[in-house]
Amino acid sequence: MNYTFGVDKGGTTIKIGLFDNEYNLLDKYDITTVRNIDGSQIVIDTVNKIKEIMEDKKFSYDQLSGIGIAVPGPVKNNFIISTANINWNNFNVRESFEELFDEPVRIVSANDANSAALGEHIMMNSNSSNTVLITLGTGIGGGIIINNKILEGQTGVGGEIGHVPLDEFYNFECGCGRVGCSETVGSARGINLLVKYHLSEADGSVITTRSSAQQIFDAAKSGDEFALKIVDIYSKYLAKLSNTISVIITPATIIFGGGISKAGDFLINRIQEHYLSMVSFDSQRETKFKLAKLGNEAGMYGAALLLK
Amino acid sequence: MNYTFGVDKGGTTIKIGLFDNEYNLLDKYDITTVRNIDGSQIVIDTVNKIKEIMEDKKFSYDQLSGIGIAVPGPVKNNFIISTANINWNNFNVRESFEELFDEPVRIVSANDANSAALGEHIMMNSNSSNTVLITLGTGIGGGIIINNKILEGQTGVGGEIGHVPLDEFYNFECGCGRVGCSETVGSARGINLLVKYHLSEADGSVITTRSSAQQIFDAAKSGDEFALKIVDIYSKYLAKLSNTISVIITPATIIFGGGISKAGDFLINRIQEHYLSMVSFDSQRETKFKLAKLGNEAGMYGAALLLK
Repeated sequence: MNYTFGVDKGGTTIKIGLFDNEYNLLDKYDITTVRNIDGSQIVIDTVNKIKEIMEDKKFSYDQLSGIGIAVPGPVKNNFIISTANINWNNFNVRESFEELFDEPVRIVSANDANSAALGEHIMMNSNSSNTVLITLGTGIGGGIIINNKILEGQTGVGGEIGHVPLDEFYNFECGCGRVGCSETVGSARGINLLVKYHLSEADGSVITTRSSAQQIFDAAKSGDEFALKIVDIYSKYLAKLSNTISVIITPATIIFGGGISKAGDFLINRIQEHYLSMVSFDSQRETKFKLAKLGNEAGMYGAALLLK
Repeated sequence: MNYTFGVDKGGTTIKIGLFDNEYNLLDKYDITTVRNIDGSQIVIDTVNKIKEIMEDKKFSYDQLSGIGIAVPGPVKNNFIISTANINWNNFNVRESFEELFDEPVRIVSANDANSAALGEHIMMNSNSSNTVLITLGTGIGGGIIINNKILEGQTGVGGEIGHVPLDEFYNFECGCGRVGCSETVGSARGINLLVKYHLSEADGSVITTRSSAQQIFDAAKSGDEFALKIVDIYSKYLAKLSNTISVIITPATIIFGGGISKAGDFLINRIQEHYLSMVSFDSQRETKFKLAKLGNEAGMYGAALLLK
């Protein structure tokens, strides 16, 4: 039996997954992210944990296929220019890890959102070789898989679909300093801004400006008209994002993940319905809309699958 | 010496280029497109012409590296579901050509706009491995190169950037039946529609609703204020298209081709200026804006370069 580690580096927790030959998750471990000035402690702690697991599980370097590392920042050819959360700047991931092992170990690295996209893409087990993951959280994240490979782009910033310029109506401000980026409307924060904007139409609704995304979707499912209106605007907007991506790269599958995707088929079906009303090409109709399956383990799975 | 043919199939003319090992164009030939009901005449005529050239140039099948074929329709793995212009439907390009040669010949096929993108990408000879070609003609065409390969997408319709949903203000109708597609504003037709829309502001301008794109750019270059306004709106709009593509795939280079790109640096510099004012990520600033070099030979070059 051979083993692969998938490591997902977060700002507070490092997730380490141990996988078998078939990329089944055998065990997972969390360690706390300790950030020193150059992020070297994170490397040391991770390598020590991996060595401990190898000792515990009694397997040798010969049985270790490699270690995949998902990183919260742009990665290009295993090199990172900067990460805000873990202090890796001008940082060669491969070399930094390799030198702490006693024997040669294969190390591969990618951006965490891109790794998550690869994880969902492969574990979805469809015939797709082109997949987009759209992660609906506080912002919009995601990743793009072209011909079964992560799209890194020329600079490692590929797939930053949260900043597709999409809105010229609401003009909500984006964290990047611009207005109109897809995540200004398409995120959890965006739903709340939609509620605020349309509040004068909320007569008789249970929704207030303090309602969470989940409460808004629950109300919509119960037939609350204002909530339904907000969900409809929101779905149409994500359909437009989907159509934009679809016309440019024609993926076989668009997968929705992140907290808001817990609204389930109720949301996905609405996005797809709007999408079908706006496509330019018949072949765009073949794009499948699916819910993500791996939750917050997607980055860890994807990291391991970088070795595939 | 080895030879490669690059064939660009158009609705009226088939361009055949003969290239050497280094993809230098040695000779080019035009034959008329004769469309019979199943498009088979096009295959016969092309193969006969290629055999004639081989005889004329006195080289054998051993010296033929292969034939690349650019096709005006979606191509996926050398297979075409339908083309409007040359009647190839459910058509295997590779097999259809192979069977007419006396000896084995390597045949590769791609969409013509995608081939043009590959041609410009390689002949531009930059360090870019990710390039987008935006062709500004009657509509907007183009192609996307990721890691030095054409992005076909799941269905062969990759890179249809003329239909990125981009406009919610003018709502000009698109040939695809939708409104708001990038080519409704960003094409030669789009410039004319912009002139019509803003005509009440045209006092003192030489521009009329019958002015060609070239006349509008010439007037703008001479300082005509209304023409400058139209060019500015147009450039900003293409900057938005560039930003949309850039955020999704972060190309190193965006190349502008097609008739309108003859406006030259006057246009490209304006697009880049607006682009720089709208990007979300510093690394997007590294994207280079360039003018296409191969003109209407780009598809023929790209077809040959499919063999590279």
